[in-house]
Amino acid sequence: MAGNSFGTLFRITTFGESHGPAIGVIIDGCPPNVSVDTALLEEEMLRRRPGQSRITTQRKESDSCEILSGVFEGKTAGTPIALLIRNDDQRSKDYEHLRKAYRPSHADMTYDKKYGFRDYRGGGRSSARETAARVAAGAIAKMLLAQEGIQVRAYVSAVGTVKLEQSYQELDLSQTESNIIRCPDPATAERMIELVASIKKKGDTIGGTIDAVITGVPAGLGEPVFDKLHADLGKAMLSINAAKGFEYGSGFAGTTMLGSEHNDIFEENDKRITTRTNHSGGIQGGISNGMDIYCKVAFKPIATILRPQESVDQDGAAVTVEGKGRHDPCVLPRAVPIVEAMAALVMADHLLRQRTNHNT
Amino acid sequence: MAGNSFGTLFRITTFGESHGPAIGVIIDGCPPNVSVDTALLEEEMLRRRPGQSRITTQRKESDSCEILSGVFEGKTAGTPIALLIRNDDQRSKDYEHLRKAYRPSHADMTYDKKYGFRDYRGGGRSSARETAARVAAGAIAKMLLAQEGIQVRAYVSAVGTVKLEQSYQELDLSQTESNIIRCPDPATAERMIELVASIKKKGDTIGGTIDAVITGVPAGLGEPVFDKLHADLGKAMLSINAAKGFEYGSGFAGTTMLGSEHNDIFEENDKRITTRTNHSGGIQGGISNGMDIYCKVAFKPIATILRPQESVDQDGAAVTVEGKGRHDPCVLPRAVPIVEAMAALVMADHLLRQRTNHNT
Amino acid sequence: MAGNSFGTLFRITTFGESHGPAIGVIIDGCPPNVSVDTALLEEEMLRRRPGQSRITTQRKESDSCEILSGVFEGKTAGTPIALLIRNDDQRSKDYEHLRKAYRPSHADMTYDKKYGFRDYRGGGRSSARETAARVAAGAIAKMLLAQEGIQVRAYVSAVGTVKLEQSYQELDLSQTESNIIRCPDPATAERMIELVASIKKKGDTIGGTIDAVITGVPAGLGEPVFDKLHADLGKAMLSINAAKGFEYGSGFAGTTMLGSEHNDIFEENDKRITTRTNHSGGIQGGISNGMDIYCKVAFKPIATILRPQESVDQDGAAVTVEGKGRHDPCVLPRAVPIVEAMAALVMADHLLRQRTNHNT
Amino acid sequence: MAGNSFGTLFRITTFGESHGPAIGVIIDGCPPNVSVDTALLEEEMLRRRPGQSRITTQRKESDSCEILSGVFEGKTAGTPIALLIRNDDQRSKDYEHLRKAYRPSHADMTYDKKYGFRDYRGGGRSSARETAARVAAGAIAKMLLAQEGIQVRAYVSAVGTVKLEQSYQELDLSQTESNIIRCPDPATAERMIELVASIKKKGDTIGGTIDAVITGVPAGLGEPVFDKLHADLGKAMLSINAAKGFEYGSGFAGTTMLGSEHNDIFEENDKRITTRTNHSGGIQGGISNGMDIYCKVAFKPIATILRPQESVDQDGAAVTVEGKGRHDPCVLPRAVPIVEAMAALVMADHLLRQRTNHNT
Repeated sequence: MAGNSFGTLFRITTFGESHGPAIGVIIDGCPPNVSVDTALLEEEMLRRRPGQSRITTQRKESDSCEILSGVFEGKTAGTPIALLIRNDDQRSKDYEHLRKAYRPSHADMTYDKKYGFRDYRGGGRSSARETAARVAAGAIAKMLLAQEGIQVRAYVSAVGTVKLEQSYQELDLSQTESNIIRCPDPATAERMIELVASIKKKGDTIGGTIDAVITGVPAGLGEPVFDKLHADLGKAMLSINAAKGFEYGSGFAGTTMLGSEHNDIFEENDKRITTRTNHSGGIQGGISNGMDIYCKVAFKPIATILRPQESVDQDGAAVTVEGKGRHDPCVLPRAVPIVEAMAALVMADHLLRQRTNHNT
Repeated sequence: MAGNSFGTLFRITTFGESHGPAIGVIIDGCPPNVSVDTALLEEEMLRRRPGQSRITTQRKESDSCEILSGVFEGKTAGTPIALLIRNDDQRSKDYEHLRKAYRPSHADMTYDKKYGFRDYRGGGRSSARETAARVAAGAIAKMLLAQEGIQVRAYVSAVGTVKLEQSYQELDLSQTESNIIRCPDPATAERMIELVASIKKKGDTIGGTIDAVITGVPAGLGEPVFDKLHADLGKAMLSINAAKGFEYGSGFAGTTMLGSEHNDIFEENDKRITTRTNHSGGIQGGISNGMDIYCKVAFKPIATILRPQESVDQDGAAVTVEGKGRHDPCVLPRAVPIVEAMAALVMADHLLRQRTNHNT
Repeated sequence: MAGNSFGTLFRITTFGESHGPAIGVIIDGCPPNVSVDTALLEEEMLRRRPGQSRITTQRKESDSCEILSGVFEGKTAGTPIALLIRNDDQRSKDYEHLRKAYRPSHADMTYDKKYGFRDYRGGGRSSARETAARVAAGAIAKMLLAQEGIQVRAYVSAVGTVKLEQSYQELDLSQTESNIIRCPDPATAERMIELVASIKKKGDTIGGTIDAVITGVPAGLGEPVFDKLHADLGKAMLSINAAKGFEYGSGFAGTTMLGSEHNDIFEENDKRITTRTNHSGGIQGGISNGMDIYCKVAFKPIATILRPQESVDQDGAAVTVEGKGRHDPCVLPRAVPIVEAMAALVMADHLLRQRTNHNT
Repeated sequence: MAGNSFGTLFRITTFGESHGPAIGVIIDGCPPNVSVDTALLEEEMLRRRPGQSRITTQRKESDSCEILSGVFEGKTAGTPIALLIRNDDQRSKDYEHLRKAYRPSHADMTYDKKYGFRDYRGGGRSSARETAARVAAGAIAKMLLAQEGIQVRAYVSAVGTVKLEQSYQELDLSQTESNIIRCPDPATAERMIELVASIKKKGDTIGGTIDAVITGVPAGLGEPVFDKLHADLGKAMLSINAAKGFEYGSGFAGTTMLGSEHNDIFEENDKRITTRTNHSGGIQGGISNGMDIYCKVAFKPIATILRPQESVDQDGAAVTVEGKGRHDPCVLPRAVPIVEAMAALVMADHLLRQRTNHNT
C-alpha cells in the first residue's frame, strides 16, 4: 500500500532512486505468448532519455533496459517480467548542498515530513528518473495491445500559451516524432521550440499540455463504478511528475454545453453502432464504446530553475537555492512517451479485466 | 477487480441497482473508537437526496440509511460497517420502453457490450443512485477526519458560463448551504439558479464545475509514486457520474506560467514551514505539505433530456428516445456532497496509510 | 486490509456481528450470465443452520437470505451481488455477564487487545454466525463452477478418535447428507453420532476432521508462486472458526514416503494425460493437473463448554465462566457446508484468474 | 493477480527463472528507519544456499544479494527495497532432454497447461531457486521485527519417521545451526543425517517436517475473519515448494481432545494476562494473544530422484526420465531459513496492519 504498484491484473511495481545503483520495474500479470520486440523497447527508452536535443537536459543516462525474467524464446512466459535500468551518470556531489535545504515546489520537505529523512541526492525516489521504469513497462503493454489492434499515441498540444488549434483528427500524428518538441503540426512545433529555447536561455521553465489518443479499442473495457476507464486513465496521468490536471472527451469545455448539444447520437454504420459526435471521448458510463478515446494532461513548469530562489532548510533557517547543471526547461517533449506508457498500462489492465466477463 | 471497491486501508465496497431492493456499502478498515454521529449521517444523505428543491428532480427517495454492523455503543468497533439504503420509489414500468433502446450518452450500450445484457430499469447499476452509498460512507470518513481536525468542503463554482470569480479564500464557505444551487456567493448563486431554471423549462440540461477545499491536513499524507495524493483525489472525482475533468492547485492555468512564477517559496512562520503562495494546491511530490488542498471537478450536462432524440436500439434499428418524468436539469447541487464524500474517503485512506510509516 | 474480504477476482466481503441487526456478504467479480438457483441457495443455508438435529445447538436462526442486488431476471448481471441475512433470535441478555469476562480459548481477550473494546454479545464478529455469509457466497460460487462441471463435496472424516478408514474413492459421497453427522459411511456415522451425544451429555465438546474433494477441475488453475492452488485452499480452510490444520494430497503422511514411492507417474489415457497414483492431490507446482483435488481440515473442540471454568476478566481479576444455553457439542456437521463454500470460493477465483491467461 | 506478490502492507513481489539472468524481489511498504544489517542478510542467504553440506545438492550458486534501492545511509528509506540475485551456475544444457518430457510430480505438465508453453530449463519459475528471493526479503522483515522484540526460529522436527519427541520448550533452539540437518537435538540430528545419507546413496529422496516458533509477539496481531494470523501463516508455509500440510498449536492432535482439556485457562501474572496451557498456539480468534506462536509444516520428498522413471511427454508419448547431476536428497535443512522467512513476512505484515488500529 506504499503506492509503488499500478494496475490490477496487468500490474507493475517500480523501484529505485535516481542516484542509487539502479531503477526498474516488475510486470506481474502479463499473459503468456506476447511477442517481445526488444528493439521497440529500446526505442521507447530513447524517446524518454535525457540529452536527446538542445531543448532537453544534457544529462546523459544510458537508460538501457535489461530483461531479467519472464521472457522465453522471444515471448512472454506468463511469469513476472523484470526490467532493470542501471544508473550510470550519477553526480551525487552536485547535491551535497541540498542535504538540508528545501527546494521550492519540490518534494524535499514533504519526503522529510513523511519518512523522517530522505535520500537528498537528485530527488531520490521523487526524481523523474522513476518514469523510465514506466516507459519500459509501457512498452511491454503496447506489445500486448498491438495484438488486439489497440494503439496509443500522444503529442504536445500546448507549450505555455502556444497551443495547437487543430483537433487530433485534423493532425497527422505520424509527424509527432519529426521534431524535438513532439508536436505533430510543424508550424506550431517551430513556435513551441522557439518559446522553450528562449525560456531556457533565461534559466526559467514553462508548462504545457499533452494530448493522448487511443484507437482500436473494443467496446466493453472499463469497470462501471470506481474503476471507470477514464478514472483510471486520470489517475495514471496525474501520477506522472508535474501533472496538474486531466480531462477527457469534451472535458472542461463540455461544462458549458447543453445536454442537447453534448449528447452523442448513436447510429448504425456497417453493422456497427457508432456515435455521430464524440464528446464522450469514447467512454460512456466508464466503459469504452468503441469510438476513439482522447484526453489531455496539464503539466506545470518544472520546479528546478537556474536562478537563485529564497527558501528554508529542514530547521526552518533561511537559505538560497539555485538549480545547477543540467535540467530540462520544459517537461513536455520527454513526457510524451510517459503519457503513452501510462495510457498503455491502463488499457492493458482493462483488456485483461474484461476477459473475466466472457462467460457464456 | 470488478471495480466496486475504493480505497486501500479505509476501503469501501458498494452494491445495488437503482430499481432493485436496495443499495448500500460496506466500509472495511475504519479504525475502532470513532464516534458515530447518526444525525450527521442522515444530514449528509439529505443533501444528496432527490426532490430537495425546484431545480432538482422531484423523484422521491427516502435515502434513509440503516447501520447493519460495525458500530457498538456509539463508536466504530473496528469491524466492517455495513450501511443499507432501501429503494422505495421505484417505477420500473417507466423504463419498459428502454428495454432495447440505447439512450444517447448513457451507459446502456456499453453495459450491453460489457456484460451481454443489462438491468435496463433506470440505469441499474449505472444510475447516479449509486452515489448515495458513497455519501453514506463519506459521512463516516468525515467523522474519522474530524478527530484529526481535517475538514472537507465543496461548492458549485460554475454553472455553464456563470462562474464564480473569487478564490476559495475570498468566499465564506459557510454560506454554501444557504441556497439551493450550493454556491457560497449569494449573487452568483442567484444567477446560477436562474440559468438552471430557464434550461429546465426547455427540457434541457447544463454542466458546470465544483470546487473542493480540504483544510487541517498534516504534512506527509500521500504516497510518492502512483498513489500520489492528487492522483487518488483525481480518480475519486473522475469516478463520479458525469465527471469529465479534474485539476488541483494551479491546474490547467498553471501550464502557462513560468517556473519562477509558479514555484511556492518556503517560509517559516511560528515554527511551522509554510509556502508564500500555494500553486501546489497543498501537495508536493504527491504528498501533502500542510497547506490547504484545493481542486476543481468538471461535470458535463446530464444526458437525460426531456426532448425527443434520435438513437438506435440493441439491434441497430433507428428509434426515438425521450426522457420522461423526473430528472435533474443540472447535476451540480446534488453532486456537492458527493464530491465531499469522495475527498473524505481519499483523505481517510491516506491518513491510515501514513500511520504505517510511524516507525521510531 | 482489515481482512473481511476473500478472493481476488471472485471476491467476497462479509460483514455483521452475531447480535447486531444483520450479517451479509457482497460478491464482487462474479461474471454475468450465471444462472442463479435460489432454491439451492436456501438449501445450502439450511445445511449450516443451527437447530437442525439433536447433536447441534438448539438455537434457532432463520438464516434466510435476501438477494439485494446483482441478479436480474434469474441471472447474475456482472454487478455486485449483495446477500442479506437478518439476525432474528438474539438473546443479548444471555451475554451480559460476559461484558468484562474472558472466556477461555475464545476471542474475547484478543479482540480487546486489538481494538481497545469489543461487542461482547455472543462473540460479535468472532461468532461462527459469520460463516453463514460464507455459505451464501459459496452457493453462488458453486453455481458458477457447475457451469464448468466442477463439483465440491465435503464430509466428516473423523470425530475425536472415531475415524473413517476408507479413502474418498471407496465411499459413496451421495450418502453424506443421509445422517446428521454428515459422514458418508453409515456405520462410522453411527459411532460418531453416539460419541457426540455422549459428550454433549457431559456438557463437553469434541473436535475432528472434514475432508473435501473437488472433481471436474481442468488442468491449469492456480498461480505458481504465492497463490498456489493448495496455499489458497489452505488459507481458506484455516480461516474457518476452530480450524487448526490443513493438508492436501498425501499430506503429513507423505512426509515419511520416499520420492520413488511418492511420485505420481504420468500416463496417457484416451488422449488425456493422467497420473497413476494421486499423492499430489491433483495439484503440482501449485497448479491443478486435472486429477481430483482432495484435502483435510482439522477442527479443535468448540471452546464453549457447559461447565464452570476458571478465567480472568479484562482487569485481570479471577472469575468463573460457564457456557449457558444452546451451544454445539461438535462443530463438524455444520462445518461441512462451510468447508464446501470456502473450497468453491477458491476454485471460482482461480477459474476467473486463469481466463486472463488465454492469450492466443 | 498472477500470484507473485505476498503480503498487504509489507508486500513483496518476486521474479526470476532459475536459468535466466537473475532472480530477485521488491519489498514495498517496509517502513523507514529500520536498520539494515547486510551481514545478517548475507548470512540468511548462506543458510539457504545449495552446496553447503554433504547432504545437500552440490550445485553452486553464489546467492549474493545486491541492494538496488530503498536503503540510504544504512537505514530503510520507506521506498521500495529491490534485492537482486544473479544466476551464475547455469547449466541449461543439462535440461535440453526435458524440453518436451514431463517429470513425475514436477510442475512441467501443469505449466504447459496453464501457459501453453514453459521455460523448461531447471524448472524455470517453478524451481526452488525462487525461494532465495523469499529468504532475502525475510531477512529485511526480521530486521523490522527485531525492533519490536519479535523473533522467528525454525528447525527440522522430523525426517521420514525419525521424529523429535521434545516440544520446542524442551529444546535448546540455539543448537539448530550446530549440525547440517538443522535439528536442535544433537542425537536426533545424527539419526536424521544418517537417514538422509543412506537415502541419497540410493538416489532417492525423503520428506519430513519443520517446526517454527515465534516469540515476543504482542497481543492484537492478526485480522479476525479471513486474514486470521494462522490462516496467513498457513498460506505462507503452503506456498513453499514441496509443502503438503500445516498445523498450529494443538493442530491435528487437538482434534481428539475434549473442549475441557483443550481450553487454555487465563491467568494473570505480573499484570499480564497469560494462559496456563497453550493449545491455542498463541492465536485465539485469529489474533495473537501474547503467548508463543508455534506451528508445523509438512514437506513431501523431493520429486527429482536419480533413478529412471516412466513418464510421458507433451504429446502423450511414453518416455523415461532420470534426474541427473546435483539435487537435494531432502529439502528440509535448506527449507529451515525459508520457513523462517515466510513467518517473518507474515508477522511484519500484521505488525504494520495493526498500526492502523491505534486510534485514540
